[in-house]
Amino acid sequence: MSPQIFPVIMAGGSGTRFWPLSRSNKPKQFLELTSDKTLIAETLARARTFSGLENCLIVCGARHAALVKKSLPKLRTKNILIEPAARNTAPAIALAALHVAKRNPEGVLVVLPSDQHVSNLSAFAAAIDEAVSIADTGMIVTLGITPTRPETGYGYIKQGAKLSGQTKRVAAFVEKPDVSTAKKYVSSKQYLWNAGIFVFRADVMLEAFSAHLPQSNEPLENIFESLGTNKAATVLAREFNNIPANSIDYAIAEKAENMAVVPCDCGWSDVGSFNALSEVRAMDANGNVSDSASHVVIDSRDCVVVGNQKLIALVGMNDVVVVDTPDALLVMPKDRSQDVKKVIEALKANKKWTALL
Amino acid sequence: MSPQIFPVIMAGGSGTRFWPLSRSNKPKQFLELTSDKTLIAETLARARTFSGLENCLIVCGARHAALVKKSLPKLRTKNILIEPAARNTAPAIALAALHVAKRNPEGVLVVLPSDQHVSNLSAFAAAIDEAVSIADTGMIVTLGITPTRPETGYGYIKQGAKLSGQTKRVAAFVEKPDVSTAKKYVSSKQYLWNAGIFVFRADVMLEAFSAHLPQSNEPLENIFESLGTNKAATVLAREFNNIPANSIDYAIAEKAENMAVVPCDCGWSDVGSFNALSEVRAMDANGNVSDSASHVVIDSRDCVVVGNQKLIALVGMNDVVVVDTPDALLVMPKDRSQDVKKVIEALKANKKWTALL
Repeated sequence: MSPQIFPVIMAGGSGTRFWPLSRSNKPKQFLELTSDKTLIAETLARARTFSGLENCLIVCGARHAALVKKSLPKLRTKNILIEPAARNTAPAIALAALHVAKRNPEGVLVVLPSDQHVSNLSAFAAAIDEAVSIADTGMIVTLGITPTRPETGYGYIKQGAKLSGQTKRVAAFVEKPDVSTAKKYVSSKQYLWNAGIFVFRADVMLEAFSAHLPQSNEPLENIFESLGTNKAATVLAREFNNIPANSIDYAIAEKAENMAVVPCDCGWSDVGSFNALSEVRAMDANGNVSDSASHVVIDSRDCVVVGNQKLIALVGMNDVVVVDTPDALLVMPKDRSQDVKKVIEALKANKKWTALL
Repeated sequence: MSPQIFPVIMAGGSGTRFWPLSRSNKPKQFLELTSDKTLIAETLARARTFSGLENCLIVCGARHAALVKKSLPKLRTKNILIEPAARNTAPAIALAALHVAKRNPEGVLVVLPSDQHVSNLSAFAAAIDEAVSIADTGMIVTLGITPTRPETGYGYIKQGAKLSGQTKRVAAFVEKPDVSTAKKYVSSKQYLWNAGIFVFRADVMLEAFSAHLPQSNEPLENIFESLGTNKAATVLAREFNNIPANSIDYAIAEKAENMAVVPCDCGWSDVGSFNALSEVRAMDANGNVSDSASHVVIDSRDCVVVGNQKLIALVGMNDVVVVDTPDALLVMPKDRSQDVKKVIEALKANKKWTALL
């Protein structure tokens, strides 16, 4: 019998790299960055190909629950799991595993970040299918994205011995490398990008928490007991903060022995900054990316233009990002995309700009 | 007896170099580019130091008369002379000379473009005072701006024999030079910028029209006869188009023998493009010019930021112009400021953008 699949979409993130498009009350996953659908809606569309909508779970913070419902109108409220606090990915995944375990301890979770882009859906689906099969045997499986450049912004996964099909054991999770190390990783063909996509049985992950994060045992047991009772919310609010605030990588993946990786070449992007829109959106003949027909781009190359409120005209600009919103406008070179945070710091330093954060 | 002075502000211009700040129904002279007053209001403020407001005349097109009144609320309607059509500066100046001649044929006109900036008002006033004295003797006097750079965008005036005080005869008006010629002009100290500022008696200019532009004799006589009658508007509408559509430089100044030039070093700027805002507005320590306290400029040098509708954030930009308005945004390198016209062409090519012109 094929395993019951529970896609779990992690929507607790609140980065600032897409300011001024994203704001603290509307983070990246709720933006229409790659199409006319939000990233989280695109993610749910991928997830639904693995199971019915009734098995899809979203984990998010209370402040974003309304946005989740608005972005995903067909999803039932009970499928939205509210984190009482943002405590990184390990507690969020444990919470999802508890919910699945209550319905089916051997149910397989497919954990997907809510803010990524995949262009080759069939390659992605094939990798998930293989991951689900391997997970069903008791492994914790991660998707490893075939690197297309010596990216220093991602963690890498070193592939170990072959397990079955395309799947390998994980030899090691390695931190974000420097450029020369990243180049070696890519040319070795041994290393894959860690995309934060994990596939595992609920019972297997809960055992892993028990083994590698024993401080979580008591809070997880208490939350599990309360599920379905009228005390669930109270217990969750109290106990969630007792689960160590770690990433699933650090808390579990780097420690567990039963880790596997399925290589996947699926046109994946984490859409990490405005710069990345060049990867996921159609370009004109000069490499410019624009989200509106109301832009006039003259003698310009490799620019990213975002904004549908007005005509935006560029003349003679190269490698520049222009983002226009009703109350804030950002202009920067593409290679400074990471420095949006400097603007955020400036805004935080002056109360008159609080509403823009 | 000192001559009666009539400042004449030429407000018929309709350039596009300040798009999207300027539009066809709101040209440059009606923008607050150099201060919180419009350029035309700044010009009137300078003009008023030479005469009472009742002697100040504005020449403009019918479509801009309402804007003139709004910008210059203290000016009486009868002091606004409406050109029936835009026919360059010669007909406009002739029209003003006719109006002045009706009041006082020996009245001295001080013709000032409406869209320039002067930072040293006392130097400017001293030069005008000297020009008025010389004009009173029957000369047509122009102000020659001491050049501060080998500008190729202006015409130059070659100084001739000394006439009186600082004033020289005009040896020649020369067209916009190439860079190497402009450099020679500047280093020679013989050449001054032609700022389009002319000072002359009404009767002297009308005689010059008669001598050098005889086709204008009949229309000017007909207009003159009609002034103050109930036929004035009808006659003007009919006859104005019979005056050749030339510049005053070409029609009169380059031909007349009685031309004089007063050198003037008064922090003059024609505010020719967004680039020029660096000349006329206060800069921060990194050479950036901004018209609002709601801009965040980080790691950026020598930029011009215009827009007071929202926060504008620049990160890592150099030598760039950013102009934000409610319905259009422009981003370009400063040295492409002349290429705003390429955007205008693109907008003209598509009807959906007509409202933005």
